[in-house]
Amino acid sequence: MVIESVNNERIKEIRKLKEKKHRDKEKKFLVEGEHLALEAYKSGNLETLIICDGYDYDMDVNKIFVTKDVIKSISELETPYNVIGICNIKENDEIGNKVLLLDNIQDPGNLGTIIRSAVAFNVDTIVLNNKSVDLYNSKVLRAAQGNNFYINIIRKDLIEFVSLLKKDGYKIYSTNVNNGNDVKNVKTNEKYAIIMGNEGNGVSADLQDLSDFNIYITMNDKCESLNVAVATSIILYELNK
Amino acid sequence: MVIESVNNERIKEIRKLKEKKHRDKEKKFLVEGEHLALEAYKSGNLETLIICDGYDYDMDVNKIFVTKDVIKSISELETPYNVIGICNIKENDEIGNKVLLLDNIQDPGNLGTIIRSAVAFNVDTIVLNNKSVDLYNSKVLRAAQGNNFYINIIRKDLIEFVSLLKKDGYKIYSTNVNNGNDVKNVKTNEKYAIIMGNEGNGVSADLQDLSDFNIYITMNDKCESLNVAVATSIILYELNK
Repeated sequence: MVIESVNNERIKEIRKLKEKKHRDKEKKFLVEGEHLALEAYKSGNLETLIICDGYDYDMDVNKIFVTKDVIKSISELETPYNVIGICNIKENDEIGNKVLLLDNIQDPGNLGTIIRSAVAFNVDTIVLNNKSVDLYNSKVLRAAQGNNFYINIIRKDLIEFVSLLKKDGYKIYSTNVNNGNDVKNVKTNEKYAIIMGNEGNGVSADLQDLSDFNIYITMNDKCESLNVAVATSIILYELNK
Repeated sequence: MVIESVNNERIKEIRKLKEKKHRDKEKKFLVEGEHLALEAYKSGNLETLIICDGYDYDMDVNKIFVTKDVIKSISELETPYNVIGICNIKENDEIGNKVLLLDNIQDPGNLGTIIRSAVAFNVDTIVLNNKSVDLYNSKVLRAAQGNNFYINIIRKDLIEFVSLLKKDGYKIYSTNVNNGNDVKNVKTNEKYAIIMGNEGNGVSADLQDLSDFNIYITMNDKCESLNVAVATSIILYELNK
């Protein structure tokens, strides 16, 4: 059976997943296109495929066939793909030894790019605070290119969480352009967390106060600052050596 | 005198600078907001300020005062700033010893971010090919945050240009995820050029063939590739040490 009506009750429910509050309630989110759907499938996060009539995909999950107009009503893209995946949100309390804390990242492209680099450089868990852009925002997911399925990503109050990490023996690194240690000379402990700040304002003062070390990247002072996704990636690259 | 009409001849001419062909012809481009206008001014590239009636800025250049509607007709932003600068395009044939070649970069945010990192890590000249996104696209300029005024950026046919560089003693580094030298072990010559490729396809085969060395960044193979602005920044960071 092909669902032809954009007002079908099931389709209405799926469309609600475009809003953060429904994603949080249902613990589900959408990904668009075969590449992201396949990454979701391989990582065990894919629940259902919504497929444009006439196409099919070799993934062993629940499938809903719909018309192009129905796909269009769900998609956030101008030119929708022929497939959209419904994925389960999974969060894991096993955070591992290498943790990245993001204090209020606002730009979806930056968050997606950071997720990609965090997987590349072996971060175990990314922790977002509640003011950060939503992880399941479609622009974040596109920029992450499926890497969100290969890393644990959780949401916490960062002040409380850093206190817990410290009690548990993690060393806390914060970034500060004005003072600290050049990242190229930093030797990390076995367990550590890096705090990266907001695009405009950097790491908040409360979190800086809780940090054990400040780190910076040496650069020409004609450049005021690096893009936050670039700065995060360089620090993760250097600490992963 | 305050220009009130969006159909004023001078305003019509200025508005044409939103199109690449007019920017190329007039050798001028627009920047929005005080921060970018000030960077243009400090670097000697600012020709004229277009200012919303009721505001003024302490820069010693030609000024045109206009209404909010006129500013709005020129701006590419939903919420325009109160000032737009007209800047002169300058290209310099003195390219220096550290050159970055960008082979067909498409995303304006990526190009702007790369410009910012290139200034941070002491690149002398960025060379774009003709298929790259236009440098004076407003999204590129916003992501570059004024750093485009602190680095020489030119457009060339890359195949021809690499041949000239080689004759002139530059060593050519290309990026290739499959083979080559880990960037952390690369010792650069005095004069070198790095070629970075397109978001989807990497460096084109013709340019790879002209390269002296391939370099790569070691990473977890769960991640297929880094964002191109991130990869470029890490390579520039490492070679600048």
